[in-house]
Amino acid sequence: MPGTPPMRFVYLGPEGTFTEAALRTIPAAEHGLRTPARSVPEALEAVRAGDADAALVPLENSVGGAIPVTLDELVTGSPLVITREVVIPVEFVLAARALTPLGEIRSIAAHPQASAQCRSWLLANVPDAVVVDVLSNATAAISAAAGEHDAALCAPIGVPRNGLTVLADKVADHADAVTRFALLTRPGPPAEPTGDDVTSLALSIRRDQVGALLAVLTELAVRGINLSRIESRPTGEQLGTYVFFLDCTGHVAEPRLGEALQGLRRICAEVRFLGSYARHRLTPEAPVASPRGLSNSDFADSAAWLAQIRAGDLA
Amino acid sequence: MPGTPPMRFVYLGPEGTFTEAALRTIPAAEHGLRTPARSVPEALEAVRAGDADAALVPLENSVGGAIPVTLDELVTGSPLVITREVVIPVEFVLAARALTPLGEIRSIAAHPQASAQCRSWLLANVPDAVVVDVLSNATAAISAAAGEHDAALCAPIGVPRNGLTVLADKVADHADAVTRFALLTRPGPPAEPTGDDVTSLALSIRRDQVGALLAVLTELAVRGINLSRIESRPTGEQLGTYVFFLDCTGHVAEPRLGEALQGLRRICAEVRFLGSYARHRLTPEAPVASPRGLSNSDFADSAAWLAQIRAGDLA
Amino acid sequence: MPGTPPMRFVYLGPEGTFTEAALRTIPAAEHGLRTPARSVPEALEAVRAGDADAALVPLENSVGGAIPVTLDELVTGSPLVITREVVIPVEFVLAARALTPLGEIRSIAAHPQASAQCRSWLLANVPDAVVVDVLSNATAAISAAAGEHDAALCAPIGVPRNGLTVLADKVADHADAVTRFALLTRPGPPAEPTGDDVTSLALSIRRDQVGALLAVLTELAVRGINLSRIESRPTGEQLGTYVFFLDCTGHVAEPRLGEALQGLRRICAEVRFLGSYARHRLTPEAPVASPRGLSNSDFADSAAWLAQIRAGDLA
Amino acid sequence: MPGTPPMRFVYLGPEGTFTEAALRTIPAAEHGLRTPARSVPEALEAVRAGDADAALVPLENSVGGAIPVTLDELVTGSPLVITREVVIPVEFVLAARALTPLGEIRSIAAHPQASAQCRSWLLANVPDAVVVDVLSNATAAISAAAGEHDAALCAPIGVPRNGLTVLADKVADHADAVTRFALLTRPGPPAEPTGDDVTSLALSIRRDQVGALLAVLTELAVRGINLSRIESRPTGEQLGTYVFFLDCTGHVAEPRLGEALQGLRRICAEVRFLGSYARHRLTPEAPVASPRGLSNSDFADSAAWLAQIRAGDLA
Repeated sequence: MPGTPPMRFVYLGPEGTFTEAALRTIPAAEHGLRTPARSVPEALEAVRAGDADAALVPLENSVGGAIPVTLDELVTGSPLVITREVVIPVEFVLAARALTPLGEIRSIAAHPQASAQCRSWLLANVPDAVVVDVLSNATAAISAAAGEHDAALCAPIGVPRNGLTVLADKVADHADAVTRFALLTRPGPPAEPTGDDVTSLALSIRRDQVGALLAVLTELAVRGINLSRIESRPTGEQLGTYVFFLDCTGHVAEPRLGEALQGLRRICAEVRFLGSYARHRLTPEAPVASPRGLSNSDFADSAAWLAQIRAGDLA
Repeated sequence: MPGTPPMRFVYLGPEGTFTEAALRTIPAAEHGLRTPARSVPEALEAVRAGDADAALVPLENSVGGAIPVTLDELVTGSPLVITREVVIPVEFVLAARALTPLGEIRSIAAHPQASAQCRSWLLANVPDAVVVDVLSNATAAISAAAGEHDAALCAPIGVPRNGLTVLADKVADHADAVTRFALLTRPGPPAEPTGDDVTSLALSIRRDQVGALLAVLTELAVRGINLSRIESRPTGEQLGTYVFFLDCTGHVAEPRLGEALQGLRRICAEVRFLGSYARHRLTPEAPVASPRGLSNSDFADSAAWLAQIRAGDLA
Repeated sequence: MPGTPPMRFVYLGPEGTFTEAALRTIPAAEHGLRTPARSVPEALEAVRAGDADAALVPLENSVGGAIPVTLDELVTGSPLVITREVVIPVEFVLAARALTPLGEIRSIAAHPQASAQCRSWLLANVPDAVVVDVLSNATAAISAAAGEHDAALCAPIGVPRNGLTVLADKVADHADAVTRFALLTRPGPPAEPTGDDVTSLALSIRRDQVGALLAVLTELAVRGINLSRIESRPTGEQLGTYVFFLDCTGHVAEPRLGEALQGLRRICAEVRFLGSYARHRLTPEAPVASPRGLSNSDFADSAAWLAQIRAGDLA
Repeated sequence: MPGTPPMRFVYLGPEGTFTEAALRTIPAAEHGLRTPARSVPEALEAVRAGDADAALVPLENSVGGAIPVTLDELVTGSPLVITREVVIPVEFVLAARALTPLGEIRSIAAHPQASAQCRSWLLANVPDAVVVDVLSNATAAISAAAGEHDAALCAPIGVPRNGLTVLADKVADHADAVTRFALLTRPGPPAEPTGDDVTSLALSIRRDQVGALLAVLTELAVRGINLSRIESRPTGEQLGTYVFFLDCTGHVAEPRLGEALQGLRRICAEVRFLGSYARHRLTPEAPVASPRGLSNSDFADSAAWLAQIRAGDLA
């Protein structure tokens, strides 16, 4: 049903993690049905099977990097496309069942990525506490609520949900860490360009690494397309063979990105289009000017000029 | 009158030079009106003014190189386009009023480019003769006929025309030297592609030499366009500023050359289209295969693929 | 003590994981002191502090990809260098306390990356078992031995150590999956080139992504250096800023790699040299020939030629 | 005899042309022996044979372009090197035996390149005069002095030498046209760099035109070497095969130009070094800053850094 916003959302659970918080920033999700999935593959499978209209899963974190399972899922199985990105600040709190002096904390439950992001704070403020690895931020909060550990490193959303008390907030070492999520749906015509869009692609290349990557980047550079992200993931076949994930500035409906995409298609073993969608900016930024001669209007001008030549009109 | 071959031809004279010989290889010219012009500019001016339908002028010689005046004329004044190229072998003969032993030849009239192309032969066969520079091959023949010099280096066409006798033929040092001529007309829609075409361009570039030339060649390379010729000519403004003349493989009606042309238009200070026309080959050659992914059909495939993506059809 | 092999080895523990198995393939380690560390940072810190001579830690897995914490540790703190790589096949077994029919297995303990690598096998052979995430392969074996779960996905090395019985071996979906480990020491002169070496680098770049990466790859390509690996890791500062990890073919002592390194140094914001060391091949491979003109001997020839020119010797 | 300036100069004659004027700007030539040669080949042969110490010949004109015979001679025969360039303004005068109103001039003797450079002035000022082609500027002056023609277009140096009177000076269409000459000697160690030098090269390339030229320019670009001139000349073998003449910024003794030269040597079929010499500037110009990271001092820094790495000194 084109034009109708999705109603049934699935997201990487459990409840009380950053993904749920991110999902609730989408108005249609706030008013729709929200179901947690046990894993990224399960979330995507729900959309592929038609059991959900859209899935929100994490793509990357500015400190921890890409979420490998999400990338791997995007290039296997039937195609899904990103129709929206959500970027939210990642804030960690240290929370406990009751207000406790930091000096009395003996054990802290934390997801390894969480403790990694707060390492300096932990060293400075609770140097004697033992950090115990658990499998998610939500699990950390639950285990502190259950009294298994004295405290938890968790997301703010986990505090009220588990009846915890915040002992310290903003404990992450990188104050402006963010996580970026992708809303995935079954394929359909992309939304109109907004003027500040991203196009995500997955490429596999066939020739030697340097030459093939040079060729890929050249296809983008000659059309003035910039990259906001490049990640490599192994294909699983042997060391040294990769799929590259690119986030390009621009929208597939624009001539210059369309031309670049065709160029990639011609030289790569495979190109999977993963969506064109509005960039989500936490703070507004002035758009970057295209290099000379490489704006969308330069593309329109050169097309008009070529049409004249083909018509024999050189006057 | 589309479809009607040109009837009034002008060519770089005088009569009896290679240009006239080249013109007569064109059937329409053999049966049309052929008028010699005193200079390349005069020939082109006749076409621009509508006094002639087409002008044949030399473009380059495989030994002597480009004909500067032709290149310079092509980038000034109102646009003309090349609609045909003619390549003919350049043969020189040594001719005199009567059969004369080579040892008795004391002076030889020759255009400087002709004597340059026969230097080794002259040194080996008439080492004691003085070579006197004259202003054209035709003038050389005329001066020998008039008895001003003992012999002339000239084109075969000049022998019967001046009642001369050939003393030695094929005296050029490069046995397979050729000259390439361009038939120029006022602009009109290019003829259909033949599958073995050339597109000629004149470019001026604005930035630093290395970076700008790299950019130009990259625009061609990413679309699989090859160059059969590149020449630089000064713009007349200062040392180090050039117009580049390129002969590209392919036809402006083809997608890949069209895309490359647009790319050049965007990055160059100026691009002048000088025509798309069938390549003239003296001996048939197997066409060079396009690099992988860069054939015309690869361009068609990638365009179809993009259309599917834009339609949301990723199945 | 140059020339003396390291004696005190530290490795990513716990005991009974693939890292210990990899370490024991190194003769000096088999006869030296081997101490497990609780984390990659702890292992590297032991070397930095002089408490150990070398640390073996995982770098990447052919299915799961890079080990983020290892990459992040390599670019922070005082420099360490890779002096050896070890590649070992990754084999998973399903093991239990006693021989049990697969149909009776209800719960399986597994590290999430292990269960991901065996997903198809699990689905086909124990479709009804619940997979329970645990924090390491060794933990999985221990929990099965303790009866907490009916079985464990673990490394072969974990079987005898915990008194388990193998229910099925080679259960990984990719039969030839491998993990690559790095042996890290404090800096010192690199070992001599072997003719089949790798040089590892970490780069940060300052300009726009496409242009800067193009420049980096061009520095390598013009010297005929290929990449066997490229990974990006966020710098932690903001989305879109990365450190790139490259594995280049060749050795820092070779002229062509030395020239390429200097080129990278000039254009990158920072280049960290991470070591030149012999490539470890599980199966011998014919070396890849250098592109024309780009072998080490071509570099020697061109240097000799330049020396002649500088001496004025053009004869 | 190193350190001793050349004493016996030969130049492209006849006397009274721009080449003689250019030669006399060199102090050693003003005080040395100056012999005109009948042609560029004759001048160079005198140096090759040891009959002269140096030859001054024209290289290019800012309006008329390269002097083909000079380029062709530089790539054949035993090597010669450019040790100095001389750039002089090209001024033409219209001169006659006696002061004559322009309206009464019926015929003007002129070298074709001279009349081409003065075309607009001639059209505006002596529209009815017939321009008669002669073989040199000196011949034009001589023929006017002899009364064969009413006037001559010639160099100022031809006026007093032939007892002529100037009817109009600065008659060239491009007021700031210049001609550039090269002083050629037998090979020897290049002079020290001055900080504003040119290095001239002749290259032949073996592969397809676009790819090979891209490779050549890339070798220069990655080392920050710019081109002040690029010319193509046919090799004489067949259409489309060229020798490229490059003038690069920098001196062969500098690391970055040395590295670029080695790169060209590795990828080109042939590289002929034609000399490193001080640039002659008619008006002082601020030197162009090297791109970031590509100055000579950046090359020195990166070499020092590499030496540290090779020594194992990463502290």
